Amino acid sequence: MGEKMRIGIAGYGNLGKGVEYAISQQPDMELVGIFTRRDPSTLHPIGEKVTVYPLADADQYVHDIDVMILCGGSRADLPEQGPALAKLFTTVDSFDTHAKIPDYFAALDEAASAAGTTAVLSVGWDPGLFSVNRLYGESVLADGATYTFWGKGLSQGHSDAVRRIPGVQNAVQYTIPSEDAMAKVRAGEQPELTTSEKHTRECYVVLEADADAAVVEETICTMPDYFADYSTTVNFISEKELQEKHSAMPHGGFVIRSGKTGENTNQVMEYSLKLDSNPEFTSSVLTAYARAAHKLSVSGQHGAKTVFDIAPGLLSPKDPAELRKELL
Amino acid sequence: MGEKMRIGIAGYGNLGKGVEYAISQQPDMELVGIFTRRDPSTLHPIGEKVTVYPLADADQYVHDIDVMILCGGSRADLPEQGPALAKLFTTVDSFDTHAKIPDYFAALDEAASAAGTTAVLSVGWDPGLFSVNRLYGESVLADGATYTFWGKGLSQGHSDAVRRIPGVQNAVQYTIPSEDAMAKVRAGEQPELTTSEKHTRECYVVLEADADAAVVEETICTMPDYFADYSTTVNFISEKELQEKHSAMPHGGFVIRSGKTGENTNQVMEYSLKLDSNPEFTSSVLTAYARAAHKLSVSGQHGAKTVFDIAPGLLSPKDPAELRKELL
Repeated sequence: MGEKMRIGIAGYGNLGKGVEYAISQQPDMELVGIFTRRDPSTLHPIGEKVTVYPLADADQYVHDIDVMILCGGSRADLPEQGPALAKLFTTVDSFDTHAKIPDYFAALDEAASAAGTTAVLSVGWDPGLFSVNRLYGESVLADGATYTFWGKGLSQGHSDAVRRIPGVQNAVQYTIPSEDAMAKVRAGEQPELTTSEKHTRECYVVLEADADAAVVEETICTMPDYFADYSTTVNFISEKELQEKHSAMPHGGFVIRSGKTGENTNQVMEYSLKLDSNPEFTSSVLTAYARAAHKLSVSGQHGAKTVFDIAPGLLSPKDPAELRKELL
Repeated sequence: MGEKMRIGIAGYGNLGKGVEYAISQQPDMELVGIFTRRDPSTLHPIGEKVTVYPLADADQYVHDIDVMILCGGSRADLPEQGPALAKLFTTVDSFDTHAKIPDYFAALDEAASAAGTTAVLSVGWDPGLFSVNRLYGESVLADGATYTFWGKGLSQGHSDAVRRIPGVQNAVQYTIPSEDAMAKVRAGEQPELTTSEKHTRECYVVLEADADAAVVEETICTMPDYFADYSTTVNFISEKELQEKHSAMPHGGFVIRSGKTGENTNQVMEYSLKLDSNPEFTSSVLTAYARAAHKLSVSGQHGAKTVFDIAPGLLSPKDPAELRKELL
């Protein structure tokens, strides 16, 4: 193996920590440092020897870093940091606001093309690996239907919505794919299904001392957009049980393509993820795509790229002949 | 949509018929003709207006065909036809003799590079989509183990082996993935499993009039390599039942990557196919990759390519902006 790929991490929440772990598992990568908007002395990286730099000084390290992995959030951080950092570095990010992807792509493409860098956006599992499977599915089975189911997984947005209800001290919400709906899809029935027909919702709620459980349950189950259209179950538990049993961030889901070939033959392609940690998995995907971003950049393929533009072989530390021999 | 991609089919068995069907489902492709070593007048394509040409005359049609899809067998046909046709056309094939892929790749690469064509080899589901999933799996979850299970599916080789036993009039054999083994893998246990621990075998046998069922069953279950190491069940049925219930060619299987991230977090990625017709599905994969082969060829990326070298977006008739908007 030649020189190691030099990686920087921008942002150090759950995603940044996951990337720090993931880099340590990759044989051909080394972590140059973590960049943060916070006071660097307040950060405590997992690796004892890892250096923390002010994000504002990132431009001083353009010659020390091959790929900067952006670990900020899609709402406030990435729309600004993405194009700014793509002017300095080849980047990878997990931008996941579906409706804004075309605008974000355009901003990154302009910045990266002008700077001669490569900016890989919207990497993770959805968008990301799920997107790739939607694409393989509809390309191969041209006559068919694609279904994405999410869960079982912790939904941060829905958990927050429950926590805002008066009388609720703490809460988590799990999105659960409907077994009935999945069975129909797997049987090749190609049903028409709304998001609420594909999923049920399960809440674990800690009440405040004087709260009325019946009122809280009613408020949850009738909440427009979030719960009203769904089959929802509400479980009341203690803060202790919530901390012990519901502190992890599991997630996952299914992409199923059901199609017909020949006269009328059923064919089903299914992809699924069962993740005990949603952020750590997303970080692992980001890190594998950092390798692809570096290879693209070195070979002069600059500008914004998505998972659709990236040949699978670029994700691996193995060379093409090894891949053909071992994995094909 | 611009001009349609012009496709030729070389070889007209189950795979060639499947490709003929698959082309009719793709909005941007048209079938120019079928090329055969048999007497063209003896072939009856599904499409009434489809022309059949002698394969020996293929060189007269180099300007009429964008991609030739090779539907011959891996043992006798492709090693010879692949390089010969890659000198004339951009090609796609389903070469699946794993051990001989490096040599076949080299022969195709030499022919295609010299001719300025693109030769995409070993396309289908295994090798093919399963290979891609093995690659995504180990690239993302660097610390883990990959498992491929095949079935439930009809195995031609094992069916033939049973048919050769004295006293057997007809037979089919299904390979079935072991539920126990899959459960362990899905639970993140990362067990070490041999092929025989991952699968069981199920035979449906029609006896000749004077045959001894006990002897036939014993002969099957103790057959070295094919059955001796497996848990095998043998069912005796009538020729009528065999024709009615066991004439289809279903197949499928699972690629599961189980890995650890962070401190010790389990993550499981699973890909599966449930195919009512193995050859029709392989044909559909070949046809989608024909589109990619054409795009690569037009953009000057010549030589031999595998599924690892091909960005997913190239498989789709949609343009990159559409893909980002609809599928990312």
